[in-house]
Amino acid sequence: MANDAKPDVKTVQVLRDTANRLRIHSIRATYASGSGHLTSCCSAAEVVSVLFFHTMKYKQTDPEHPDNDRFILSKGHAAPILYAAWVEVGDISESDLLNLRKLHSDLEGHPTPRLPFVDMATGSLGQGLGAACGMAYTGKYLDKASYRVFCLMGDGESLEGSVWEAFAFASHYNLDNLVAVFDVNRLGQSGPAPLEHGADIYQNCCEAFGWNTYLVDGHDVEALCQVFWQASQVKNKPTAIVAKTFKGRGIPNIEDAENWHGKPVPKERADAIVKLIESQIQTNENPRPKPPVEDSPQIIITDIKMTSPPAYKVSDKIATQKTKEHPERFIECVIAEQNMVSVALGCATRGRTIAFASAFAAFFTRAFDQLRMGAISQANINLIGSHCGVSSGEDGPSQMALEDLAMFRSIPNCTVFYPSDAISTEHAVYLAANTKGMCFIRTSQPETAVIYTPQENFEIGQAKVVRHSVNDKVTVIGAGVTLHEALAAADHLSQQGISVRVIDPFTIKPLDAATIISSAKATGGRVITVEDHYREGGIGEAVCAAVSREPDILVHQLAVSGVPQHGKTSELLDMFGISTRHIIAAVTLTLMK
Amino acid sequence: MANDAKPDVKTVQVLRDTANRLRIHSIRATYASGSGHLTSCCSAAEVVSVLFFHTMKYKQTDPEHPDNDRFILSKGHAAPILYAAWVEVGDISESDLLNLRKLHSDLEGHPTPRLPFVDMATGSLGQGLGAACGMAYTGKYLDKASYRVFCLMGDGESLEGSVWEAFAFASHYNLDNLVAVFDVNRLGQSGPAPLEHGADIYQNCCEAFGWNTYLVDGHDVEALCQVFWQASQVKNKPTAIVAKTFKGRGIPNIEDAENWHGKPVPKERADAIVKLIESQIQTNENPRPKPPVEDSPQIIITDIKMTSPPAYKVSDKIATQKTKEHPERFIECVIAEQNMVSVALGCATRGRTIAFASAFAAFFTRAFDQLRMGAISQANINLIGSHCGVSSGEDGPSQMALEDLAMFRSIPNCTVFYPSDAISTEHAVYLAANTKGMCFIRTSQPETAVIYTPQENFEIGQAKVVRHSVNDKVTVIGAGVTLHEALAAADHLSQQGISVRVIDPFTIKPLDAATIISSAKATGGRVITVEDHYREGGIGEAVCAAVSREPDILVHQLAVSGVPQHGKTSELLDMFGISTRHIIAAVTLTLMK
Repeated sequence: MANDAKPDVKTVQVLRDTANRLRIHSIRATYASGSGHLTSCCSAAEVVSVLFFHTMKYKQTDPEHPDNDRFILSKGHAAPILYAAWVEVGDISESDLLNLRKLHSDLEGHPTPRLPFVDMATGSLGQGLGAACGMAYTGKYLDKASYRVFCLMGDGESLEGSVWEAFAFASHYNLDNLVAVFDVNRLGQSGPAPLEHGADIYQNCCEAFGWNTYLVDGHDVEALCQVFWQASQVKNKPTAIVAKTFKGRGIPNIEDAENWHGKPVPKERADAIVKLIESQIQTNENPRPKPPVEDSPQIIITDIKMTSPPAYKVSDKIATQKTKEHPERFIECVIAEQNMVSVALGCATRGRTIAFASAFAAFFTRAFDQLRMGAISQANINLIGSHCGVSSGEDGPSQMALEDLAMFRSIPNCTVFYPSDAISTEHAVYLAANTKGMCFIRTSQPETAVIYTPQENFEIGQAKVVRHSVNDKVTVIGAGVTLHEALAAADHLSQQGISVRVIDPFTIKPLDAATIISSAKATGGRVITVEDHYREGGIGEAVCAAVSREPDILVHQLAVSGVPQHGKTSELLDMFGISTRHIIAAVTLTLMK
Repeated sequence: MANDAKPDVKTVQVLRDTANRLRIHSIRATYASGSGHLTSCCSAAEVVSVLFFHTMKYKQTDPEHPDNDRFILSKGHAAPILYAAWVEVGDISESDLLNLRKLHSDLEGHPTPRLPFVDMATGSLGQGLGAACGMAYTGKYLDKASYRVFCLMGDGESLEGSVWEAFAFASHYNLDNLVAVFDVNRLGQSGPAPLEHGADIYQNCCEAFGWNTYLVDGHDVEALCQVFWQASQVKNKPTAIVAKTFKGRGIPNIEDAENWHGKPVPKERADAIVKLIESQIQTNENPRPKPPVEDSPQIIITDIKMTSPPAYKVSDKIATQKTKEHPERFIECVIAEQNMVSVALGCATRGRTIAFASAFAAFFTRAFDQLRMGAISQANINLIGSHCGVSSGEDGPSQMALEDLAMFRSIPNCTVFYPSDAISTEHAVYLAANTKGMCFIRTSQPETAVIYTPQENFEIGQAKVVRHSVNDKVTVIGAGVTLHEALAAADHLSQQGISVRVIDPFTIKPLDAATIISSAKATGGRVITVEDHYREGGIGEAVCAAVSREPDILVHQLAVSGVPQHGKTSELLDMFGISTRHIIAAVTLTLMK
């Protein structure tokens, strides 16, 4: 191991030379694209060189191998140096690199998992470390494997609170297989970062949050080799390496100068700059990464089956938010929803786990940016949101999710489940576990009756026509608590001789447009939607859009308007216009037209 | 001042007795409601007693007075003790307090500004301190007044990253008029908080982030008086007081015991508990708060007028995201969007400023929970989001806002502007400044032509029919860059003898349904929407909902589907189906039906 800590003179020179080759690649790529964050690459060149060609262990021909050490470029705008590293590894050609930021090239301005060596899309700052925590937790506690996780961050992004949520998580769980590197290059987009080169302040903050820390010259490859090795020897603490660097390092008049953020080198100086850096390269050796320790268990997590049908009987009363739990596989993520989602994203990378993250649905708004980036990351994670809508009652509006459907519907490729009883909730969980992409399951606090038998089959995008007859005059679409209000309204109206068709959409995205349209046509084009959600972006608008190209279908929306208040469930459903009484009134009004 | 630091024996006893009266009020209120976070109130009783009746200066008959010290209960679930304090002040009657959490009472489970003494709704944890930062910044730098700002936080919520964003902001701006109190009562909702009573760890974190700190017994009123006074003597640093307390303090068998989070006292013990606490009260004095120093400037920020018409000419090319700046009134909030929004919310309280917060629109997703709480807070803040849609180009999907309309539309009472040229953008800014509630202005990166004259008048909820004739066959609705694509399509189609009506909605919420419906009817019921946004929750769905109760109007939506990629604006508009070519095709297809 002493060799890893103190590389020989030749190795040191090779690592220095590699750093300079990474610089040259970054210069050429950003020059070819006419944009890109060259100076943010140059500050990190030695860190990346040492990590990729001295410290990290991985299969150079199989970037997705489960035993590989993980690398997350949290400062995603420095993408060119990551691509440059994979040029040196041999996975990208030098000519490909010149397609940086061009249409149809996977070498985007910020890295995404369209590239095999990227586990997590980055580019929204401050999110890499939380995902790294999920990977490190998985490595240490679930895989119980040797792989380590390295996260490279900028100094500017250390101001994102999500970073400190991750710091607290990593020290609480003693993630000694995790190393965070702060590239403290002093300069942000529009001038110096608030702490400039005050690297000791970063170090104090990391230590206060319970991490092992080192302060190092980020351009000294010997020092970097030393601290990465030391980090591997520390037990039960994650390590933060605060690397003091210079933005634009190695480029005269650009190094440590303002106004060079996100810019390539000037055309007239490009050749001279490359020549200058080339002149400093003394070796011609192509460094090889070290192979990984192959000790990860084989994981097969496809085709998850329900071992027995749901154990609920029709008419049992149970809240949909109470139907599943697995305490033995639970990771407590405390009051830090951004990090919870990032940890789930990290746990789910490379197919190691099927991650479910659960919170009050309202508080997933806290993690909307992480969810957004999760979609860009092609992540397979599942979110379960409880306490949806005004029906969650007495805790008041701060605890009520009334915009969660709008949020999750807007996420590309997200499947949005909104089960209406315990049976369908359990099916939603299994379907989510087997579904690629993000899934959200919206659950409710009130105890509502079980309406399906344990044998009922559920499919994504397949609505249930819960009540129907040949005489139906109106189609009512409800979900969760409002489906039960709709059924009560249908019972009441049937006593008046008015038949109403009632639909449970089960998934709001994808929505079963075919069933809705055929039901609407069968009921005179009359549709009423009723939802415990704001009017915008919820079930009503989804239905309006689904029928928007059909003539003669009219949709009447019942939804929550304005900020609600506290109260009992029944009081609030009534006050906000989504109770049985309002559905009956809407049906009556619709039939008068 | 020595008197403030070291109160006499009688004052100390009065403050102790007041703390116990606050406990009794909290017990009675939560007992009457059958729910509420009693134990979280009891840990804070001495802190609240000392703050309200010894340290803070305010007019007891005018809780909203601009000269008053501010108090933010960031741990909003402890609402009963805040209400109890105002019972002692004299603004709430003891009988009112028994309506806690009941319908039609303003004493909600978590405090909202429906109460005059609440500036900010709380209840989503970790948000109080950021708003307190905005208030303290306003007090120190804008009002240049004497008032101080006090924020009471729980230990559990210190795990929210937003708290540490606020810590970094407050020390960077030397907010010595700000005091944060951590009520470290050890227990969270489902067991001990990760750090339990490790108050020194909280203190180290606060110090590392540049704050003056004190560690204190949170039930010792003398010690609390002392540290609040010391904090007032410290220059250029905010102060954090880490108060070690016990959850449920003063209630035998409940104090410091698990499983009492969010629960009232048991029925059979209620009387005995109240009697026990009453027996410890030795004085009968009604404490009075100290009056404030009256040195805030008078601020009148209504009826903001444009001093001159916008200085752009028709056909000038300018990006809508470049049309306004005021560097002299700018607060740099670095890479910490949650805190930026919270600071804006704080700055806007009590009508002290008209706050505009600006970021890449995509990164407002980071602050969705703060925005959601801002709506509950009835906040008058304005958000300007740039780089919307795929048209923002080469930086790739992480930087593109494609869900911002869905997000802001779902916020109650939020006005959503989407101006399409520099003139209308400038009007949007002035209209936002004069509009109550939240406003969002969506701006774009591409340089687009000015289409309105400087004299054009703009109103919220009033669309512009940009192109029309009596022969129009289809209505096309676009905004921002897609309005320009629609105009180009109309030009092209007119050469083929097809007249198209083009509408600029100007505000997406409220949407000008009347103009859209009348235009649709005038063009054979044919509507095409085209937007640089995902299909869900954007312009298309808003239009579908607006026409959903009209027969014979069909809507064809053009919007972005799936995660986009990087590229040039024109390439991406075309690749994602929202360019001129696609609009022409959609018009042609629509007319074939």
